[in-house]
Amino acid sequence: VAELEAVLRGVVAGSPRALGRALSWVENGHEAGRELLRLLPRRQGWLPTVGFTGPPGAGKSTLVEQVGLRLQARGERVAVLAVDPSSPFSGGALLGDRLRMPRLVAAGGFVRSLATRGALGGLAAACADFLEVLRAAPFSWVLVETVGVGQDEVDVASVVDTVVLLQVPGLGDDVQLTKAGVMEIAHVFVVNKKDRPGAMDLVRMLESLLPPPEADLWRPPVLPVAATTGEGVEELVAALEEHQRFLAARGQHRELSRQRAERRLSAILADLLVREIKGQTEAWQLAVAAVAEGREDPLTVAEKLLQCQWGKR
Amino acid sequence: VAELEAVLRGVVAGSPRALGRALSWVENGHEAGRELLRLLPRRQGWLPTVGFTGPPGAGKSTLVEQVGLRLQARGERVAVLAVDPSSPFSGGALLGDRLRMPRLVAAGGFVRSLATRGALGGLAAACADFLEVLRAAPFSWVLVETVGVGQDEVDVASVVDTVVLLQVPGLGDDVQLTKAGVMEIAHVFVVNKKDRPGAMDLVRMLESLLPPPEADLWRPPVLPVAATTGEGVEELVAALEEHQRFLAARGQHRELSRQRAERRLSAILADLLVREIKGQTEAWQLAVAAVAEGREDPLTVAEKLLQCQWGKR
Repeated sequence: VAELEAVLRGVVAGSPRALGRALSWVENGHEAGRELLRLLPRRQGWLPTVGFTGPPGAGKSTLVEQVGLRLQARGERVAVLAVDPSSPFSGGALLGDRLRMPRLVAAGGFVRSLATRGALGGLAAACADFLEVLRAAPFSWVLVETVGVGQDEVDVASVVDTVVLLQVPGLGDDVQLTKAGVMEIAHVFVVNKKDRPGAMDLVRMLESLLPPPEADLWRPPVLPVAATTGEGVEELVAALEEHQRFLAARGQHRELSRQRAERRLSAILADLLVREIKGQTEAWQLAVAAVAEGREDPLTVAEKLLQCQWGKR
Repeated sequence: VAELEAVLRGVVAGSPRALGRALSWVENGHEAGRELLRLLPRRQGWLPTVGFTGPPGAGKSTLVEQVGLRLQARGERVAVLAVDPSSPFSGGALLGDRLRMPRLVAAGGFVRSLATRGALGGLAAACADFLEVLRAAPFSWVLVETVGVGQDEVDVASVVDTVVLLQVPGLGDDVQLTKAGVMEIAHVFVVNKKDRPGAMDLVRMLESLLPPPEADLWRPPVLPVAATTGEGVEELVAALEEHQRFLAARGQHRELSRQRAERRLSAILADLLVREIKGQTEAWQLAVAAVAEGREDPLTVAEKLLQCQWGKR
């Protein structure tokens, strides 16, 4: 208990050590992590959160570090969350967090990776729990880097305010764009490696795919950058700030909070409920066998399991 | 009812029209789809299923079509399932299924895409339902193509027997490999565009990352191919057949079926239960508001909702 209180105080003071401890508890599903989440003070005001997504090799880490450095340089306090889904067998992030973005850490930024293990409610829920911890600390921006292109990214997008979709020329552009599935949820498009052949074609292609501007709707800008040299990063930071102002001016914070609360509650409930039913070992094993052996279809079996549960009312 | 029976007969006979109808019902969550899944005859014997995953632009569609063509040429009956997660806003696959793999369709193969919408239990569950329908039809192989690199792919891998991980040189190889998260679940590695610079280095790198061979453990082969010309595809088909023989010889069909049944039941149960709780609109709205406004943490609220439910017993 004394340790929990010390960690709570450390989180509120922004101690990297206490933050690291708190996030490890939360990530591993420790009882201390749950207790911490219950006790965290609620933040006054909005903490801007930005998600960066795009295919592997697009240069996401480099870009996120550059954006973080710009923000730190003007006195903001930046936390980076690198969502690095562990494989189901290896468990855990592959790189040490301090090695991940050494310049940003040297400049006072906080960097932490998040693997998916042990999370109640999946990756997005784990990410949301991490953000709750970061909200209690004195950060003024949180940058979330995700790996891959798929439902994961759509899920993680649901926990941040602003989604940046990173593209690079030469990855089979049509495929990247049409299959991305994240086109519609991006608020800012970035074409990295802007000096490579095809980069400006990609910028134009993205612009041509955007719907015509409409009053009161956010129109995603398409920004060419070179993450390794930092060219274009200033413009990207300006776009992130503008999107935040757009959200605030339209009073969208309340609606975003509501949507996120609904998603988190659904995910956590689902996990808790399924654990409860699986806990009734014998009924569960019989149900699994009936489906595995093809004697019954899973929907029918699931409905029967439910009737047994709810029927007891 | 008459229509349902006609579609059922058509599925069993392998009619593409009936299959298309049946899969649309299942995909859209229609009552007819549920009914169909309940009534489908169970297949005698094992239907080999192979998943193809890898980054966008790696040439997955081209390779899957080539593998399908080889199998059809030797008298197998091939179905291809292209898992194409729709964005949460656009809903549905972008390409017509007949245009997706025109040569394979012309050769008698069946090609269908799967978007994620409306599925009870998420993408993997929808994929599993599709496989159930295909199992009732006279196919001898099913090839599943997935998009992206992430939890989606790990999930889809859980519904197929054999996972093929496709890589290409020049996508930032280290990043591709270490961040893939699917390394550990792949049974066959394929390096596509084998005539490009760096392809053979990538083959060697992959081989060096594999654990040493062990008796009675499957050792994933690393196969260079050129999907556009078909070079190396014969060797890939041989590797798929060998992996299937490996599974059968070790009696792993039973264990695979059990694991899949457990995952499907969990996913469906979670969805059904959350729907039930959300159906109690007022309690649900109060709970969402408490979390959205930061008055309570979601785990505490979820536990309270559960207590109300189970407490009624």
